[in-house]
Amino acid sequence: MCGILGVYNSENASYYTYLGLFALQHRGQEGAGIASMKNNEIKLKKNLGLVQEIFPDEKSLESLEGRIAIGGNRYSTINASGVESIQPLVFSLHNNKKIATVHNGNISNYKSLRQQLEKKGSIFQTDIDSEIFAHLIARAKGKKLQTKIKNSFQKIIGAYSLVIMAEDELIAIRDPWGFRPLQLGKKDDSYIISSETCGFDIMDAKDVRDIEPGEIVTIGKNGVTSQFLESKPSSSCIFEYIYFARPDSRVLGKNFDKYRRQLGKNLAIEHPVEADMIISVPDSGNTAALGYAQEIGIPYDIGLIRNHYVGRTFIKPSQTIRDLSVKKKLNPVSGLIEGKRIVIVDDSIVRGTTMKKLTRILRENGVKEIHVRISSPPIEYPCYYGMDFPTQEELFVHNPAIRENKDMLSAMERHLDVESLRYLSLDGLLASVPSNGYCTSCFTGKYPTAIEF
Amino acid sequence: MCGILGVYNSENASYYTYLGLFALQHRGQEGAGIASMKNNEIKLKKNLGLVQEIFPDEKSLESLEGRIAIGGNRYSTINASGVESIQPLVFSLHNNKKIATVHNGNISNYKSLRQQLEKKGSIFQTDIDSEIFAHLIARAKGKKLQTKIKNSFQKIIGAYSLVIMAEDELIAIRDPWGFRPLQLGKKDDSYIISSETCGFDIMDAKDVRDIEPGEIVTIGKNGVTSQFLESKPSSSCIFEYIYFARPDSRVLGKNFDKYRRQLGKNLAIEHPVEADMIISVPDSGNTAALGYAQEIGIPYDIGLIRNHYVGRTFIKPSQTIRDLSVKKKLNPVSGLIEGKRIVIVDDSIVRGTTMKKLTRILRENGVKEIHVRISSPPIEYPCYYGMDFPTQEELFVHNPAIRENKDMLSAMERHLDVESLRYLSLDGLLASVPSNGYCTSCFTGKYPTAIEF
Amino acid sequence: MCGILGVYNSENASYYTYLGLFALQHRGQEGAGIASMKNNEIKLKKNLGLVQEIFPDEKSLESLEGRIAIGGNRYSTINASGVESIQPLVFSLHNNKKIATVHNGNISNYKSLRQQLEKKGSIFQTDIDSEIFAHLIARAKGKKLQTKIKNSFQKIIGAYSLVIMAEDELIAIRDPWGFRPLQLGKKDDSYIISSETCGFDIMDAKDVRDIEPGEIVTIGKNGVTSQFLESKPSSSCIFEYIYFARPDSRVLGKNFDKYRRQLGKNLAIEHPVEADMIISVPDSGNTAALGYAQEIGIPYDIGLIRNHYVGRTFIKPSQTIRDLSVKKKLNPVSGLIEGKRIVIVDDSIVRGTTMKKLTRILRENGVKEIHVRISSPPIEYPCYYGMDFPTQEELFVHNPAIRENKDMLSAMERHLDVESLRYLSLDGLLASVPSNGYCTSCFTGKYPTAIEF
Amino acid sequence: MCGILGVYNSENASYYTYLGLFALQHRGQEGAGIASMKNNEIKLKKNLGLVQEIFPDEKSLESLEGRIAIGGNRYSTINASGVESIQPLVFSLHNNKKIATVHNGNISNYKSLRQQLEKKGSIFQTDIDSEIFAHLIARAKGKKLQTKIKNSFQKIIGAYSLVIMAEDELIAIRDPWGFRPLQLGKKDDSYIISSETCGFDIMDAKDVRDIEPGEIVTIGKNGVTSQFLESKPSSSCIFEYIYFARPDSRVLGKNFDKYRRQLGKNLAIEHPVEADMIISVPDSGNTAALGYAQEIGIPYDIGLIRNHYVGRTFIKPSQTIRDLSVKKKLNPVSGLIEGKRIVIVDDSIVRGTTMKKLTRILRENGVKEIHVRISSPPIEYPCYYGMDFPTQEELFVHNPAIRENKDMLSAMERHLDVESLRYLSLDGLLASVPSNGYCTSCFTGKYPTAIEF
Repeated sequence: MCGILGVYNSENASYYTYLGLFALQHRGQEGAGIASMKNNEIKLKKNLGLVQEIFPDEKSLESLEGRIAIGGNRYSTINASGVESIQPLVFSLHNNKKIATVHNGNISNYKSLRQQLEKKGSIFQTDIDSEIFAHLIARAKGKKLQTKIKNSFQKIIGAYSLVIMAEDELIAIRDPWGFRPLQLGKKDDSYIISSETCGFDIMDAKDVRDIEPGEIVTIGKNGVTSQFLESKPSSSCIFEYIYFARPDSRVLGKNFDKYRRQLGKNLAIEHPVEADMIISVPDSGNTAALGYAQEIGIPYDIGLIRNHYVGRTFIKPSQTIRDLSVKKKLNPVSGLIEGKRIVIVDDSIVRGTTMKKLTRILRENGVKEIHVRISSPPIEYPCYYGMDFPTQEELFVHNPAIRENKDMLSAMERHLDVESLRYLSLDGLLASVPSNGYCTSCFTGKYPTAIEF
Repeated sequence: MCGILGVYNSENASYYTYLGLFALQHRGQEGAGIASMKNNEIKLKKNLGLVQEIFPDEKSLESLEGRIAIGGNRYSTINASGVESIQPLVFSLHNNKKIATVHNGNISNYKSLRQQLEKKGSIFQTDIDSEIFAHLIARAKGKKLQTKIKNSFQKIIGAYSLVIMAEDELIAIRDPWGFRPLQLGKKDDSYIISSETCGFDIMDAKDVRDIEPGEIVTIGKNGVTSQFLESKPSSSCIFEYIYFARPDSRVLGKNFDKYRRQLGKNLAIEHPVEADMIISVPDSGNTAALGYAQEIGIPYDIGLIRNHYVGRTFIKPSQTIRDLSVKKKLNPVSGLIEGKRIVIVDDSIVRGTTMKKLTRILRENGVKEIHVRISSPPIEYPCYYGMDFPTQEELFVHNPAIRENKDMLSAMERHLDVESLRYLSLDGLLASVPSNGYCTSCFTGKYPTAIEF
Repeated sequence: MCGILGVYNSENASYYTYLGLFALQHRGQEGAGIASMKNNEIKLKKNLGLVQEIFPDEKSLESLEGRIAIGGNRYSTINASGVESIQPLVFSLHNNKKIATVHNGNISNYKSLRQQLEKKGSIFQTDIDSEIFAHLIARAKGKKLQTKIKNSFQKIIGAYSLVIMAEDELIAIRDPWGFRPLQLGKKDDSYIISSETCGFDIMDAKDVRDIEPGEIVTIGKNGVTSQFLESKPSSSCIFEYIYFARPDSRVLGKNFDKYRRQLGKNLAIEHPVEADMIISVPDSGNTAALGYAQEIGIPYDIGLIRNHYVGRTFIKPSQTIRDLSVKKKLNPVSGLIEGKRIVIVDDSIVRGTTMKKLTRILRENGVKEIHVRISSPPIEYPCYYGMDFPTQEELFVHNPAIRENKDMLSAMERHLDVESLRYLSLDGLLASVPSNGYCTSCFTGKYPTAIEF
Repeated sequence: MCGILGVYNSENASYYTYLGLFALQHRGQEGAGIASMKNNEIKLKKNLGLVQEIFPDEKSLESLEGRIAIGGNRYSTINASGVESIQPLVFSLHNNKKIATVHNGNISNYKSLRQQLEKKGSIFQTDIDSEIFAHLIARAKGKKLQTKIKNSFQKIIGAYSLVIMAEDELIAIRDPWGFRPLQLGKKDDSYIISSETCGFDIMDAKDVRDIEPGEIVTIGKNGVTSQFLESKPSSSCIFEYIYFARPDSRVLGKNFDKYRRQLGKNLAIEHPVEADMIISVPDSGNTAALGYAQEIGIPYDIGLIRNHYVGRTFIKPSQTIRDLSVKKKLNPVSGLIEGKRIVIVDDSIVRGTTMKKLTRILRENGVKEIHVRISSPPIEYPCYYGMDFPTQEELFVHNPAIRENKDMLSAMERHLDVESLRYLSLDGLLASVPSNGYCTSCFTGKYPTAIEF
């Protein structure tokens, strides 16, 4: 996952981009970068780290001059050798035309596209998808950038939300399936492109609208114009609703909070239980837990305290300290939960290791009954569209101790040592979100596109 | 404020100290340090920054050898020139006896003690209180360290919880008024001293007990022994219950969460209101808001999303961007609150600037009625015992726009542009916490000790 | 200018590369990098700064595994945005074949080559020449890398010494004019490529030979093999003899020291003068000054002390300190030179500002007569082959105060306030170095190749 | 060793201190610091590293306001835990009187002075001598600082040149033996104190005079005044003449270069030899080698090239590379010295390891005869006055392979594998320097003061 942002026509373009990346930090903590444009010159600053670490003071933004800027947060740098894989990337096309790109997503036919390009003499300097975009544009027919994009992006299969900064334009493209979100906003005379609307809120910009699947939006001197790639079946990533997007971000004019709360309500309807208290795994389970509590009429409470100072570095216990269950991130409010029947709500279970640690801690603190409720179905398949799930073997449901049982749910309950574990059904999930076509491949294994391995 | 921690008799003394400081990070984010002792040699590592920044990897703890270690987080470095003011401090006494100290609090008669010492030829290298402790010990009668402490600390007036690491002992002292908390814990054969019990939880240590006001605890080869300074009227800082301590920390065996929830309940009893929803200012108002909601029977909800990546550095808008209300820290869930009558609960109002920003943001998002409820009385007086309040003039109730009104509460409501603002009464506050003697001087101006200006 | 180095077949390949870059540090102080290869995976580490700053400890080399490595020092990053312009560069060609490149020099037909490539759809990510090499290879005919190079490098006009690391080979190419030096060395079973032989000495490797102009050397499992590009008139950069190469480096088996000393001797024959003492501008003028002194029979002495701690950062005097002639780099031995007739020898005068400062300092210290002797002709033309001279207007001889005089030499003497200034003649220069074809374009304006502006 | 500097009455006090420390960098490379004073407030900035690393830009000096400043370079931090041992130190005396100190030297009776002070209740925070000075001042009789110094410093035995910055004065003290140098200079209306005159030259200040042994110089509103401690036998460190001071620095109005050249001349008179060439170990042997060459009439030449980029960090060869004689610092000009009879001159031999490496390298490069000439007597005893010699056992003459021989000189020659090795005699040494009383204890074992072990 990544968070991407673009600003058009502002004397504070790079500052607004900084603000936007800051609001989108949850979409990527490994690295960030900003590129700005002035007189066909692109200035770039990027590094590993949080937005605040890379841009610690005004001086750090000084060189990023110009009225157009784009930026990106990077989620993970797996298979990537350091800062080279941080976005934006900058390219120079024919006649010294400079472009910079940031994107969010994962191209499904990356390998065959790359091989085709290499056969024609293209060379690659990174392993990230953005180079494919640039190579396709460089070789496409047409004079204007939009035409080149329209003519060449047809062959790209997969998930991509992309922002390109060119001489005097900002271009935003969302793949025809609409896997990843992309929003258009406006602040005074400036236009903003952002992965989520929280990128608008931080700078007091207003939502304009969702960018459509397959849409190529060009923002330039003539305002905002659109072209479209050939349409495909709508396949929005449903995990944005379950976990990824910030609850205060909006889609189609409504907060994700609203849908996430409905997930909790439907979960309560499908899987009610008698209990003393509903708690959440903070912060991912908060909204669904509130919905569950409201629907079922049992009080919501804060049973786990999150340490907000947990960053990326944490020294692990050495082997001489074997059994230390370091409660660095979550600590229970022991007096509150002792002797109680607890429902603990989270959005999903990926590997199961965190949930197992949590249930053990709850037991140690005298909880009488533990009922785990998950506001989505079990994750059974890997994501090929940009969500950073582990390999299939590492997923909770593929744990041999669970997989080999007839009654997998009971096996899971035993593994977690809980009185009950229940997942929201796929139907319950789809009933909670706006009616639309979704990619639910991580639950069903039905991938909207062909995948190259 | 500061967080302090000591570990006695562990081969992982500095690692456990690191863990403890990590759990106590909320008590001080400006700097941190750890000192460890081996064969009368003290190794010290300290710097400005968060615990994780100063100790990013195992290598950073490597030099801190020994079975005893102490550490401290520092809240603020006002009046202090950089790293020199970070704790621990290390001193060498007669016969090359090395000691290291960390403390939390503020000595009321610092100036006169310092002048007396300087007159006798003592020199000072910092402006922090710990030097006073060391000088008094160096000049005290008696052979053993505890005797010297008992003989000389009688003259210290004010708030201090102090941990001293000496050759083969760990000594913990809490001032006779008991202003600041100090806890004794145990993990296997090791003893732990910590400002709060959350410092024990992170390393799976068990609570033993509160260290008593005036108690000098010596942990050495002969186990734990105690001596006492002359007793004073109990004056525990009540603000630890209202805001400062982590809700999952325990005092007298009960979570602070329990008392903070009672504050909310009593606030609801004193100042009920008709509304659609109770929200909190996260995270400081969370528990009191839950108590308020439970007592009054209106649903608690999450109306403000906190950006957890906010650190110490943030580039402010330049003057060219005048009216930008940067929502870097809190963003409302607009759809949830629009058109609603909202009760917003927080623990206290200090300057009033944050609350004013928040109520403005709520208004902009279409909230119909705003009722502010504060789970403590108005702060009217400065704290001389270590709480980092601003000067009296900067306090909300001393704002000229408010102070000059007959009906201050109405003036406050107008200033914040809210339908109602109510504070918990002092009686309601005292009824919520364990029966004990408290320092409530920030509300009443009645200081338990003489103060030197 | 740059220093480049490659190591083939050593378990310490990256360490030897580090050593070599260290010895070649004088060829570039702005940045450095090392790439190593193992199982077709290339690891890269590069940054701005000195070799020692980028590789401060063993850990910094740890990730650079493999038996082949290349590295480069970069002289200047003009027109280049930071670390992106540091070498090596890494590219991926067809079938995931990885290559890394470092080069020294300047391509004369860079712009037209780039335009041709861009027209065909190539995209560029940097402004440095190495991308041209990679693009040409990617599009060249032939199966083997050497064949591709032979088939495509024919079109490159200009100066380049290039080392390429490919799957299991190290390839070194020197342009057909032989502008920049390139040496082949051997250490046990390993082969080394280096800009200068001082890169061999530091690791106890032995000189094998100069790589020939136009030669493509392939070092692989079958040992060392050679192919040749079409030959061109020999045009070795004569400035390597005058200034750039380290005096302890060897060319054609002889130290540069030998030739540089001969420059001083011929300078003495052409421009003798009566004086008390010969001093040099350390360290650039040292060897020529010794030669001058030996030929003319006047004692050589050390009249200027160089501060060896001068690095890249130095805080300049503010405008409030107007007349401060900061002697940060050179300080005269006042007692030695006072009242004396001094000959001061340097290798060249570029802008004239340093020499003017020096003669002023000598005057202030009571020198009776100053005779400046330069061991090369006046620099009158810019270098298009990689030497980092300023623009023509900034050259000393193009200073308006000098240029507009009939007798330029007298004008120069007046400008520098010296009794005499004499340059070695072009004939005297050519008579001092091995008989060979040289590029002397900076003195004559006769460029061996066409130049694109 | 250390370099110390003070500036009185300049609006650029901290900048001039920075310049001076830069010129004195050869006296200490481990760390540096600057303290400045304004309105009785002292600002301090210090760290490990070179002056340029600690003060990389104007911003780094910004906070150091005021018209008085002092600074120091630190040579070594043995026995010292990091930045705490870097100078200046800052102390607060009675009535909040702030002082800052920097010193160069070593107190002989440190231990007994410290014990006396500790008995009286003083506490120490570092192990460096400067704390003794501050404690003595704090306890001394008298009102004015100079009086306190005069009354208390009488008990200090040993080497110290000290600069103190107090409210509106700069005080410089040189111990009564005059072990370490200290100079007074003037620039316009400002006074400068510096370890060496090269600290004046860099800022265009003029020499005023040497500060006398036992002199307490006070620079204040009434100009420069002096008091004196009780006189002792003059014992200037003769090693400043042999090696430590920069050759361009002056003592008693003459350059050290002059005396160092005389050492070479007297060495030639005592130990002539037939040879083809005189070379030096750069840069320490340069001036003596020139003197030797001039006296004996054999040409001086540059046979070893020094790599000036050698800093403090250098990755050593791993154990898998056994016999690698890394020529990181010095590389021979092989063609020049091959087949020649060489005299190599250096100032001293400490451990002998560097000289042994050098003679091996010379042999490997085909030198026919090697004659080592040392411009001082053999170092046989440790220095207790601040020179950072190793323990006696590590000294070259105490090497068991040498010590156990009747004819030690022959044993040394065999060890170094040279045709001859000769040292300048003590008489020859004393005849080369100004007539004065010197400490020659490292050669003779006769220490001018009692030493505490």
